[in-house]
Amino acid sequence: MISQESITLKPIGYVKTKALGDEVRNKSVISEIHVRPEFSDGLDGVNDYSHLLILFWLHEIPELKRMTLKVHPRGRADLPITGVFAVRTNLRPNPIGLTLVELTGVEGNVLTVRGLDAFDGTPVLDIKPYDYWDIAKEIKVPKWWNRLEEEKKQV
Amino acid sequence: MISQESITLKPIGYVKTKALGDEVRNKSVISEIHVRPEFSDGLDGVNDYSHLLILFWLHEIPELKRMTLKVHPRGRADLPITGVFAVRTNLRPNPIGLTLVELTGVEGNVLTVRGLDAFDGTPVLDIKPYDYWDIAKEIKVPKWWNRLEEEKKQV
Repeated sequence: MISQESITLKPIGYVKTKALGDEVRNKSVISEIHVRPEFSDGLDGVNDYSHLLILFWLHEIPELKRMTLKVHPRGRADLPITGVFAVRTNLRPNPIGLTLVELTGVEGNVLTVRGLDAFDGTPVLDIKPYDYWDIAKEIKVPKWWNRLEEEKKQV
Repeated sequence: MISQESITLKPIGYVKTKALGDEVRNKSVISEIHVRPEFSDGLDGVNDYSHLLILFWLHEIPELKRMTLKVHPRGRADLPITGVFAVRTNLRPNPIGLTLVELTGVEGNVLTVRGLDAFDGTPVLDIKPYDYWDIAKEIKVPKWWNRLEEEKKQV
């Protein structure tokens, strides 16, 4: 076992979006990712993909909240309290966000994407192309997850 | 734009596997993730999912290699040179690995998973549950990607 206790990262770019607050959770929201000019060459070939996985730093989560280990999913007290590694909450020991987005445009060092649930100014850590190995055919999720989806359909 | 220049993470656990070298790329390989005891509570409910996304730190990539911005996919000179954000190479500015795995068991603070392409001792940064929002229905990947898949079928 390696005892590497501290890992340091640098933003490779930043999110730019007009969406405010909860608007970013709308799956149709369009955002831009402004990649730092020194990393622009890393984007070569990215437009051969329809989808990307964006890793970003949840910079608004204070250090203290990184100690949270259990939450109610989506903050709803009627859903069972659950470990943070079993929910996509932003309260986690290493607050890294991960979202599948649709790539709608590339121009120089700016990507335009649909469905990125990150606030304006969020530091981006990595951009990974989405391929068939990221797709699981048959999956199982908790009952509360399916229940939330059903509720949305009824709205 | 936020000028947060440096981000610090801590491993939440480590990979334990008997697979050596390229053996870890075998999609059927079984590995364990030993979550640090202080984060065990975060695993509550994880076994309600069939699949997880594992974020890990590619600790064997030296600082200098983080400057690489273009590579031949899978190190093959016959494939077009491509930006690191358009390939799942481990040479990237922030060497974070991301892999979809099948969860085959949970016992205390130890997860058993299938398909994790990480070496023994790799620091784990985050464990995220895989759900339907991580599945894109129709996707596009580069020609070289499909060509590599075709080659595998012919072996």
